[in-house]
Formats: sequence, structure tokens, C-alpha cells
Amino acid sequence: MAHDHMDYGENSASTARRPGEIGKVFLVGAGPGDPDLLTLKGKRCLETADVVVYDALVGAALLEHCPKHTRRLYVGKRDGRHSLLQKDINALLVKEASAGNVVVRLKGGDPFVFGRGGEEALDLRAAGVPFEVVPGVSAGVAVPSYAGIPVTHREVSGAVTFFTAHECPKTGGPSVPWDALARAPGTLVGFMGVRRLNDVAAGLVAGGRSVTTPAAVISQGTTSKQRTVVGTLGTIAELVAQANLEPPGLLVVGEVVRLREALEWVSEGEACALMSSGFAP
Amino acid sequence: MAHDHMDYGENSASTARRPGEIGKVFLVGAGPGDPDLLTLKGKRCLETADVVVYDALVGAALLEHCPKHTRRLYVGKRDGRHSLLQKDINALLVKEASAGNVVVRLKGGDPFVFGRGGEEALDLRAAGVPFEVVPGVSAGVAVPSYAGIPVTHREVSGAVTFFTAHECPKTGGPSVPWDALARAPGTLVGFMGVRRLNDVAAGLVAGGRSVTTPAAVISQGTTSKQRTVVGTLGTIAELVAQANLEPPGLLVVGEVVRLREALEWVSEGEACALMSSGFAP
Repeated sequence: MAHDHMDYGENSASTARRPGEIGKVFLVGAGPGDPDLLTLKGKRCLETADVVVYDALVGAALLEHCPKHTRRLYVGKRDGRHSLLQKDINALLVKEASAGNVVVRLKGGDPFVFGRGGEEALDLRAAGVPFEVVPGVSAGVAVPSYAGIPVTHREVSGAVTFFTAHECPKTGGPSVPWDALARAPGTLVGFMGVRRLNDVAAGLVAGGRSVTTPAAVISQGTTSKQRTVVGTLGTIAELVAQANLEPPGLLVVGEVVRLREALEWVSEGEACALMSSGFAP
Repeated sequence: MAHDHMDYGENSASTARRPGEIGKVFLVGAGPGDPDLLTLKGKRCLETADVVVYDALVGAALLEHCPKHTRRLYVGKRDGRHSLLQKDINALLVKEASAGNVVVRLKGGDPFVFGRGGEEALDLRAAGVPFEVVPGVSAGVAVPSYAGIPVTHREVSGAVTFFTAHECPKTGGPSVPWDALARAPGTLVGFMGVRRLNDVAAGLVAGGRSVTTPAAVISQGTTSKQRTVVGTLGTIAELVAQANLEPPGLLVVGEVVRLREALEWVSEGEACALMSSGFAP
């Protein structure tokens, strides 16, 4: 098991390889924002990377784990310019690994939860490039947690559904059917832009969820800029617009939102909220 | 942000506190099994713990992060004897923290995904005991990943529902309604005993999922004992029974299961499968 390697020396991956040998790609989940929610394996990947391919959702703090020689390739949007197309990112991963590099593809949250890690892995496999997946802490669970909302809770919610509200590239319609989503049991967690909030809330109400269902939107969750707005499916879009929340946002719908009143443990708006206890860690 | 404290010295929490001061409880997600999927914050919590309260789902390897003086309190089932009742675990956490200890409540996966962390946090809050939640990598995402199954995939599944198949303590019926679950969009991931598999598969088919829907059960996922059985909703219960899979098991239902054929990357049945690459990490 991996545990034997827990104290593997830093930066030794590059020197251990023989010339001409093919590299490897690690699809690493960076977690939801708090850099301390990176996994031990993710950290070790960064410490041994020749190349890191990253985008905007990933905190720059994580790149500090990389040694000086690591090349840092940014593939997200910047200054309104388009980000690299997914097929170009995939080709970049293949190229760098084929040149013998240990490549880390660093992705916000988990690579397989709306992270398009599956598409990258398929292209790597097709090109004969070895890969490993390093799961990360998903924003869908951790962001509500930092807002005092457990996505499941005994006798309140025995299920939770994660969904995206992006449009389907094939049909131009929503990527999930609202009526089926509205009737799914338990908590709903939406990964989405705040701009789509009105459509999503209206779709869920049209699909059968009560307009009085508790709902919360958490902006920049697990970071020092975290802000949470709580309302109902009927009010949440307007409340979020009034509060001027910054993306990325996460929508939580269901009775578990009520638990925030008792369970809130992060003081939002304090720069060092997460470190306020006086104790380590 | 937490990052400033990343290199906080080990074991300094105990000595930093003043006598008579109340302690704190960290509800820590241990991740899905692979000890390298613990978070950096989770590791630091273990390194500073006076007391760790843990159960059977957590790998003993994680306790190696604790210093010698840490008391390790086991509250799971052993040798057929009942585990501590939830209310007794909650009372133990309150008692130890009230005595001034830094207490880590270590839970498999994530504390708020069927981990009953919400119940523990409510009792801590009611008793005036400070707490923090340290989210973990959920088995619901990571175990399918290690079996080569992305729970979401563009144009295949834009949503994923996690559910438990335990009986509801109030009604004696299932904790989630099968028909609503069957019609939920996208992938379904069940946290459950393998004994309930027959009922769950039959319930999903009765609720409207096709009997030919791909389904997989992964046993002891992300560990060196990982085993995966793939079939359909119509065949999976019998295939799992024939294969004699050990608990804990995770059920994955949906078209994403087909991707395993192309994406499988862990060689099951090899003791060091996860370390076979020759590269660090």
C-alpha cells in the first residue's frame, strides 16, 4: 500500500527516471479552495512534478509545494481571453508526458466531479500514456460543511445529488432534466454560475420542489472570502443578486440548510476566521 | 488563511494551552481507505491530538500520525460486540473536550456524508464545546475513481446521487424512496452492505431504471484489497454473491460504469498495485 512511501524524499522523481522513458500524468484534485484540504498524495505529486498544468479554480498557494524546476502551465481564462480548449489541454498532457515528464494536472475539487478528468484520462489511455487519479475533497461536500450545512443528516436527508446547471453542448438545453432533479430524494447541490440561479430555482419549483424549500448559495467557500446567503427556492435568486456574491458559487437546496443556524462554525468576513481558535492546527 | 500555519510544529497544541481551558473537537474525514488520501489538515489534527476517537472504517495506518501521548479510543464494533451508541460517542467527545483536550473524531470518508458528523456537531454546540469540521475525500467519489469509473462525465452523466440503503429508524422502511431515486438523473452511488444489494437493485428496477443499466460493486475500494464486480441491475446481486465480496461495498449505477473498460488504472489483486508505476509518488 501507498503508506510505505509516505516519507518519500522530495524531488526524487525526475532523477530516478532513465533517459527516453515515457512520463506519467497524475490527475490531482486540488480540493475546494482551502489549501490545507489538499491530500497527502496530491502534495507529494506536486513535490515531484516536472510540469503542472492548472487553471483558475486552483489556489496559487498549492503551487508552492512544487520545487523550483517545475514548469507551471496555466490553461484557464485570463483577462477575458478564452482558456485553452479541452482537446488542446489533453494534447498538452500527452506531449509533456511523452517527453518523459512527470505531469500533474491540478483540478479544483475532484477530477471526476464535473472536472472533465474522465475526458483527459480517455485521451491519455488512447495515446498510451500512463496515468493515475488522485481524488480530491469535492467542493460539493466541503463548501456546505464550511457553511455549517451537512449535505446528509439522519432523519433529515438520506441522499444528496450533485448537478451542474451548464447547458448541454448537444441540445442547448439544460444538462440535467429539472423535473427529475426536483423529485430526486434529499439534498440537491448545484455547481453553477450565479447568473443561472434564477433559471435553476424556477426549474426546480416548476419540477415539483416547494417554493418554500430552504436554499443557500455559498460564494468562494472554504476560503477567507467565503460568504453565504440563505433563503428559499422562491427568494434565493433575488437575495443573492442583492448581496452581490462573487463566483464561484455553490447552491444547496433542502431541509439540511436549516441546520446552519445551529452548526455554523466559520465566522465569515474575518480574514483569519479558520484559524481563530488559538489551538493548532 | 490556513496556509500560513502549514508548517506548524508538531505536538505543540497540548503545551500551548492554559490549565482549565476548554478543549476543542475536530471532526476529521479520514478519506476512503488509502491512507494517502488524508488531507494535510487532517494529518495535522492527528499530530496535535490528545485523544483520537475512531472506528472500524478508519485504517489503523492513520493513527501512526499521532504522537505517543495521544490516547486512542476505539468506538466501533469488535468481535461481534456492539459498538458504542451514537449518544454515548457524542457524550465522550463532550467529556474529553471539556477536560481541556484536543479531540479528533476520525471518521471514514467525509464526516457529513452518511458519517453522522452533523449529530455529533449538534451535541457539541449544545454543550458549548468548540468544534471544526475537516472534510475528507468521500468514498462515493474516490472508490469509483480507483475502479476507473468517473461518477460524472460530459454527455454521459451530468449529475450523481449518493444514497444509503439503510432502513429508516422511524418507519422501518428504506431511508430513501426507490421510485424517486430510480428516476434521479445521472449516476447513482449507494453506500450499503452487500447483503442489501438484491433489494436495492430490485427497487431501482421497480422504480423505472432499466434492468440492463450498467452497475458495479467495489469492495474495499482504494485499498490493496480492492475488488470490483461489473454487471447490470439485473445481474449484479448474483454476480457479487458468486464473487464472495467482502464489505464495505459501494454500488455504482449508470452509463459511466461502461467507462471502466477504457479507464481502469488500478490492477486489482496486486498487493502493491497502487505503487506499481516505478515513479514517485
